[in-house]
Amino acid sequence: MDTWSLEKIGFNPKDAALDGNRFLCANGYLGLRGVPEEAGPSLFPAVTLAGVYDQVQDRWREPVNAPNGLYLRLTLNGRPMALGKTDPVCHRQKIDYRSGIFERETDFGPAIVRSHRFASMADCHLTLDRYEMRFREDGEAVLRAGVSTDIWDINGPHLSGFAYQGGDALLAHALTGEKGIRVAVAQSLRTEDGGEESVEETEQGVFRVLRRAVQAGSVWTVSVFSAVFTSLDGADPEKAAVKTCLRAKEEGFSACLRAHEEAWENIWESSEIVLEGDDTAARALHASQYHLNAIAPRHSDRLSIPARGLSGQTYKGAVFWDSEIFFFPMFVHTQPKIARSLLRYRIDTLPGAIKKAEEYGYRGAFYPWESQEGGVEGCTNFNVVDVFTHRPVRTYFRDKQIHISADVVYALRSYYEITGDRSLLEEGGARVILECARFYLSRACAHVDDERVDFDDVIGPDEYHERVRNNAFTNQMIRHCLNTALELREVFSDRPERFSALLRELHYEKDWALLARVLERISRPRVKNGVTEQFDGYFDLEDCSLDMVRSRLRDPREYWGGDHGVAGTTQIIKQADVIAMAALFPDVFPDDQLNANWAYYEPRTEHGSSLSACMYALTACRIGRLEEAWKLFLKTAEIDVSGEGKQWAGEIYIGGTHPASNGGAWMIAALGFAGLKMRNGRIEINPRLPKTVKRLRFPVTASGKRFIIDITQAGGKILPA
Amino acid sequence: MDTWSLEKIGFNPKDAALDGNRFLCANGYLGLRGVPEEAGPSLFPAVTLAGVYDQVQDRWREPVNAPNGLYLRLTLNGRPMALGKTDPVCHRQKIDYRSGIFERETDFGPAIVRSHRFASMADCHLTLDRYEMRFREDGEAVLRAGVSTDIWDINGPHLSGFAYQGGDALLAHALTGEKGIRVAVAQSLRTEDGGEESVEETEQGVFRVLRRAVQAGSVWTVSVFSAVFTSLDGADPEKAAVKTCLRAKEEGFSACLRAHEEAWENIWESSEIVLEGDDTAARALHASQYHLNAIAPRHSDRLSIPARGLSGQTYKGAVFWDSEIFFFPMFVHTQPKIARSLLRYRIDTLPGAIKKAEEYGYRGAFYPWESQEGGVEGCTNFNVVDVFTHRPVRTYFRDKQIHISADVVYALRSYYEITGDRSLLEEGGARVILECARFYLSRACAHVDDERVDFDDVIGPDEYHERVRNNAFTNQMIRHCLNTALELREVFSDRPERFSALLRELHYEKDWALLARVLERISRPRVKNGVTEQFDGYFDLEDCSLDMVRSRLRDPREYWGGDHGVAGTTQIIKQADVIAMAALFPDVFPDDQLNANWAYYEPRTEHGSSLSACMYALTACRIGRLEEAWKLFLKTAEIDVSGEGKQWAGEIYIGGTHPASNGGAWMIAALGFAGLKMRNGRIEINPRLPKTVKRLRFPVTASGKRFIIDITQAGGKILPA
Repeated sequence: MDTWSLEKIGFNPKDAALDGNRFLCANGYLGLRGVPEEAGPSLFPAVTLAGVYDQVQDRWREPVNAPNGLYLRLTLNGRPMALGKTDPVCHRQKIDYRSGIFERETDFGPAIVRSHRFASMADCHLTLDRYEMRFREDGEAVLRAGVSTDIWDINGPHLSGFAYQGGDALLAHALTGEKGIRVAVAQSLRTEDGGEESVEETEQGVFRVLRRAVQAGSVWTVSVFSAVFTSLDGADPEKAAVKTCLRAKEEGFSACLRAHEEAWENIWESSEIVLEGDDTAARALHASQYHLNAIAPRHSDRLSIPARGLSGQTYKGAVFWDSEIFFFPMFVHTQPKIARSLLRYRIDTLPGAIKKAEEYGYRGAFYPWESQEGGVEGCTNFNVVDVFTHRPVRTYFRDKQIHISADVVYALRSYYEITGDRSLLEEGGARVILECARFYLSRACAHVDDERVDFDDVIGPDEYHERVRNNAFTNQMIRHCLNTALELREVFSDRPERFSALLRELHYEKDWALLARVLERISRPRVKNGVTEQFDGYFDLEDCSLDMVRSRLRDPREYWGGDHGVAGTTQIIKQADVIAMAALFPDVFPDDQLNANWAYYEPRTEHGSSLSACMYALTACRIGRLEEAWKLFLKTAEIDVSGEGKQWAGEIYIGGTHPASNGGAWMIAALGFAGLKMRNGRIEINPRLPKTVKRLRFPVTASGKRFIIDITQAGGKILPA
Repeated sequence: MDTWSLEKIGFNPKDAALDGNRFLCANGYLGLRGVPEEAGPSLFPAVTLAGVYDQVQDRWREPVNAPNGLYLRLTLNGRPMALGKTDPVCHRQKIDYRSGIFERETDFGPAIVRSHRFASMADCHLTLDRYEMRFREDGEAVLRAGVSTDIWDINGPHLSGFAYQGGDALLAHALTGEKGIRVAVAQSLRTEDGGEESVEETEQGVFRVLRRAVQAGSVWTVSVFSAVFTSLDGADPEKAAVKTCLRAKEEGFSACLRAHEEAWENIWESSEIVLEGDDTAARALHASQYHLNAIAPRHSDRLSIPARGLSGQTYKGAVFWDSEIFFFPMFVHTQPKIARSLLRYRIDTLPGAIKKAEEYGYRGAFYPWESQEGGVEGCTNFNVVDVFTHRPVRTYFRDKQIHISADVVYALRSYYEITGDRSLLEEGGARVILECARFYLSRACAHVDDERVDFDDVIGPDEYHERVRNNAFTNQMIRHCLNTALELREVFSDRPERFSALLRELHYEKDWALLARVLERISRPRVKNGVTEQFDGYFDLEDCSLDMVRSRLRDPREYWGGDHGVAGTTQIIKQADVIAMAALFPDVFPDDQLNANWAYYEPRTEHGSSLSACMYALTACRIGRLEEAWKLFLKTAEIDVSGEGKQWAGEIYIGGTHPASNGGAWMIAALGFAGLKMRNGRIEINPRLPKTVKRLRFPVTASGKRFIIDITQAGGKILPA
């Protein structure tokens, strides 16, 4: 088995949505779905742009898909050589994880089409395609190459006022509806001379039409260069797009490819986990690391990563807690600049979080559950559609999932603790921490009789149970948040006057006095037989098996959660919750309680979220349940190889790649199996290698230097790189 | 129009459930549904017993229906003269409100059956029937008369171990399943001599079979006497039942009837509202007063009244806030002994309320939302069945409708204020008030930053909006409750040491100190353009019309409330909420705000509960919207004439009589139109007579004396009776 690639033979239009994710190319600026060049909307083609959002009417806001600048379609003797139109004799597609190159080969009978495609890691605006046509019969070949506006949109169309331009570079440009962001896509093409050429502008875009007489046995190759710019990148995106794709054409496909491959080589050098002993696992790790690295912001120092990466518009292209809890760890240990960018995004969007808190009548910062540009809350009050009535269902993710602010604080503190770099706290991070803590002070509810503090009416990570009281995870995160705020004084002990000035500026004097008082009074969860109760009253819910709950479904797509869902009134949970708390706070539980919790909650967990298995695996490592950890590791790491995972929430399509699992795979391998712990540039390991694994070897970056962690069954070493 | 009766011509089995309610006989001990004597379960026959409950397996607990001791069925020449079996030529049924006598006349062709029936108001264990058969052909008539166990049960069967006994009185006795309560029903019969007679015991009960040769033109009359006793009434219910029905037989039908009529005469003398000028309204008032008086506990001084009276098992036979807020006013003003009984029931069930509070982690008394015997909470967590999935839906009436305890306190205080009688407070009432106040102290949630006190996660009277914060009605009721607790010291100022001893006994010292502190800090609702916001965030909900919301229904029976219901996420409300607050606390709003609130909320109210129109009408009187008040009065008073009102909540049948509307009709007439106000035995009136009404005349009882309120368009007088 080639552990560096995924290949698929055969073509089934039903798999198009899934394959578009599995064979994705991306470079942090854009994601290019793994669909054939000739694809129309039924095959879900999309070039999804990071950080560019648009809302149509009252539908939800989502990322903008740019026109497809790598559109190519061959017709031979009047017959389309196009998937979806002509059944192929044979079709093969492949993604190479090391270089991020997508390959296809389709035998249509009269002609074979083969292409290599990538989203350049050396120039994030560029996507390239080398398209090779082999003919088995004589006749006229017509290749239509251009910028297609006939793309997939969930809640579109987002672009209007299209204008086209022919010439050496074709150009399509348009405006987004909500904010009038200009989006420009150019395409240039290089091929051997000969044949006729014309330019067509249609409702579907602008195209170059190349006609050639071809002979059986002959080969025709074109290289296509496309560039995307928006007005967020600069004043003249149209000009920049044309310029960039012409420059690429001049440099040529091979030169661009080399630069791209070099960039990927650097990425792998900083992050590759080598796993020996199990090729399936090694491949899954490569897949995970490929997908997470491919969508990391490298062109910006203040972007975060959407929960479905750049694989399309699902999850509204929004930034969730996934960023801080699941993506952040790999980056902070291997490429801290990217970790910094994720947090910078939160610092920049503090005003949005303050506004959201105000909207709910609270003070401080309540980060959006689904954060879009500028920290706009993208989560609606109706996040699920009922499969029986087709009506939107009121869900409370937006209003009640209050742990999000503490999650941001958790990552800010981790960044400082792991890297020893205080600058982020100085550049707004401390302000974020104080405002988040203030939110919890204002959200806290004190009993008037005994002054115990509850956090009532919340949702924890297990979203199936809405509006609960004293979710153990949430209360622990809040404790950590208040504590982090209190410890800031120590962090800034060398500049006490500066810290005092910050408190004054934030009118924080009264709140500062409350921090410690509230902190010590936050309710503690009930513990029964060593098991921590997920929230007040959880143990009183119906205790039935996962199978029993599943058997109550009347429709395979119905939503499990909330008061109407089959799980909502039982102890069946969506994902790790108490165990997520255990994974994030290794010191909270003694080992015997950890084991009791794991044994209690794991069989009651649907793992209905890709955020779940990783938390169970991390905890399993700690208590020596290595076989279970290994299974959960595979489940986590393979998700974007198999393409499994939930595709529907009620009637809403939620498919895409799973960056949280991708990050989770790294976490299990590095933090779980290797027992990696970094504090202030100091590295510790505590290997707990499943018996299948012969060796685990990976780099980390501490204090700007790279080290290699090398672990075998005999033990582990930390080596300078 | 006879304003004293309701008559219906024709028979349609589809109306059986409805007619059983409209033609109900009852006497506080039992309710005898208005169905034909020969009815089998498909026509919903029931003799519903007050205060006797039973639970089968995990179905909900409900009142026990006794075997039908007035079962009668005629066969003529082998053909059944029975509704449901033989289509009648003509069928007529009638309820006489003055005497509570049910009459039927059914022409089957070969024979005409005519009967008079009543539940004795003179001896609550007795039901009687005079059954007259006129024959149009010669032949053999067979009358089967006995105690039928083939009765209607929603969640039954509740009785088992049936034993029968023949003789002069037939007897059927059995045990309830849950608690082994013995239920005994006897029947004796009186008729002219002649013919054959035998006794049959079958699976359906015990029957006397009378055979006669009859001639065309002849008439055969039997009088049937049935008695019901349970082991809650005394040690030997079987013997008591036999004895009672034999004694009645000896006294004869006419003598029993006279005693019964006399008892009803007394009831009407103490409570009848004479309304001149509109017969429809006068009849509706008679109907309302009949139905409420018929189900009032007169045989016990510590019973309350279920929300569907004694018309069957719907609403679990449970006592709701209807008792304190809707039934109590008529009784406290006209028959204070009954008002006392309703409250005595709450005092006796205080331990149940304390247990319920504990169950939820609170101190003090949290009364059941649906109170059964001994204050057991009958409300389940799943009070509605979804029409689409047929699954029970988690509802929060049980856990979140916390105003119930304050409702009890409201009535306790009213009783004391209106009657000037402190004895109820001395006999446990003060204790109830203190424990209810304590519950709110322990439920209160104080903001740690500004000490404002919220009551979060509650349901107000408008049950369509579950789990809201600071429901205006609820917060006002709580304020009133805390205030009532504080004022107890003044009430007992002549015996301070006794009151102090009570506080000590209840370990109330710390709580006493909190009362005033919490009272002054309870959040006040937002007011916008003079309109009080029903709860925090209500104004932000979708503001659309009732018709629009109705148009979104996919099934006429689907439940409107909760997060899945069509109303839950809009401003459409089920019933008066802010307006209920206005009706109960006339001094809270100045008139202009009252008007603004009325005008805002009325069009947004579905009036999906029979508790709604009355509150709007009362408030309408106050602000001079007399035409609207009149319409709402008719709607309220006519509900058990027309039999309209919701029959279904999701998939659950909720039909029955509407005592809250019955009480509401009295309230609108007396408190609204007459503007009656009684304090400490002092009577005030403030007439606001709709122009249709020429005269309104009714008795009240103050300090043990009866007065007549007499109101015309010219003004009002208070006369000694």
